[in-house]
Amino acid sequence: MAGKVVLHYFNGRGKMESIRWLLTVAEVEFDEVFLTTREQYEKLLSDGALMFQQVPLVEIDGMKLIQTKAILNYIAEKYNLHGKDLKDRVMVNMYSEGVMDLMEMIMMLPFSKDKNAQLELIKTKAKSRYLPVFDKALSGPIYLVGGKLSCADVQLLECTLMLEEKFPEILAEFGNVKSFQGRMTRIPAISRFLQPGSKRKPQPDETYVKTIMEVFQITAPLAGK
Amino acid sequence: MAGKVVLHYFNGRGKMESIRWLLTVAEVEFDEVFLTTREQYEKLLSDGALMFQQVPLVEIDGMKLIQTKAILNYIAEKYNLHGKDLKDRVMVNMYSEGVMDLMEMIMMLPFSKDKNAQLELIKTKAKSRYLPVFDKALSGPIYLVGGKLSCADVQLLECTLMLEEKFPEILAEFGNVKSFQGRMTRIPAISRFLQPGSKRKPQPDETYVKTIMEVFQITAPLAGK
Repeated sequence: MAGKVVLHYFNGRGKMESIRWLLTVAEVEFDEVFLTTREQYEKLLSDGALMFQQVPLVEIDGMKLIQTKAILNYIAEKYNLHGKDLKDRVMVNMYSEGVMDLMEMIMMLPFSKDKNAQLELIKTKAKSRYLPVFDKALSGPIYLVGGKLSCADVQLLECTLMLEEKFPEILAEFGNVKSFQGRMTRIPAISRFLQPGSKRKPQPDETYVKTIMEVFQITAPLAGK
Repeated sequence: MAGKVVLHYFNGRGKMESIRWLLTVAEVEFDEVFLTTREQYEKLLSDGALMFQQVPLVEIDGMKLIQTKAILNYIAEKYNLHGKDLKDRVMVNMYSEGVMDLMEMIMMLPFSKDKNAQLELIKTKAKSRYLPVFDKALSGPIYLVGGKLSCADVQLLECTLMLEEKFPEILAEFGNVKSFQGRMTRIPAISRFLQPGSKRKPQPDETYVKTIMEVFQITAPLAGK
């Protein structure tokens, strides 16, 4: 079990950001190796470190973990952020999968052909499909499931902050989610993570997109919308 | 905990088929309600049964579960098909996520704009990214993880059968996967599921695609390729 946790990914949010968030809340320190060139990626491939030729890659507890959701589940379970029993866990997973679907849409935005259409779609889905569910779940309870902090709460917080970057007023109609966001940001580990100089990554910029396209040798837009 | 398990989905594979497979291996009987009209879907929505307005929906143990992976994890954990400890479980999840990525590509095929290009992409990814990993993992062990049947094995079996429907010779270079497939199909519950008249669904046809497009009021192709 010795050794520090090491994250291998691009110097940007992407699929790693939720892992950074969850490790932060679990108060697990981690180092980061940033993927900036095709050669680095090919080295990881030839070392056999990437089971399905994809990042994120997380070195933890003597293992080389891949697949975002597998990694998140491992951290959540190990650090007691995955519901207290089978029934709570399935609720945590249901909320979590929903938030991840929405975050995936935001994540793909810089790779979209028609960014305005995609942005509009995100806003519509957020307001009609996702936020009402969370606002209802948080009408009373402090956390989403079982009165206990879970990975679903952490992901929802991450997602609401991402949404507000794009649509500053989006939580106006969802007061319970806004209050939840306020409570969550006062958790000391989270409060530190939100300060400048932390390992939290900024919104994707041109350099981030260009690096990914080069490392993966992608030429066409990745997303349909 | 009383009451039979009820699956709400289209009369076809889609996102429900892996759930049908896993319930079968867990030897849990289930009933099915097939979604055939927009009105049925709107009724489920207005009943509040679909948290994120999506199917699959599974009624089980007094709960209405949604989100495919949350449902699969619940069944896997409840029926002891999810690895014996944290380290085995993360391996199960890593393999499972990989297989699900590949199956998702096959699932989206009937909704693709350019089906031949998509088919070619599936074949290439299966042969270069996925099957080599599973063939290596099965060089010796009977099951993928910890010498014990898990949901990852069930999903891999399902996936290999889907692949062979499209590319009958695809396992020729992957002898360990082919042997694994043979072993798995001799498990009595699986053997029964593979017989005509079981609840296993056939490959998607035009009626299946048309029903989905109508129920969800989709007009454009869903997948980019």
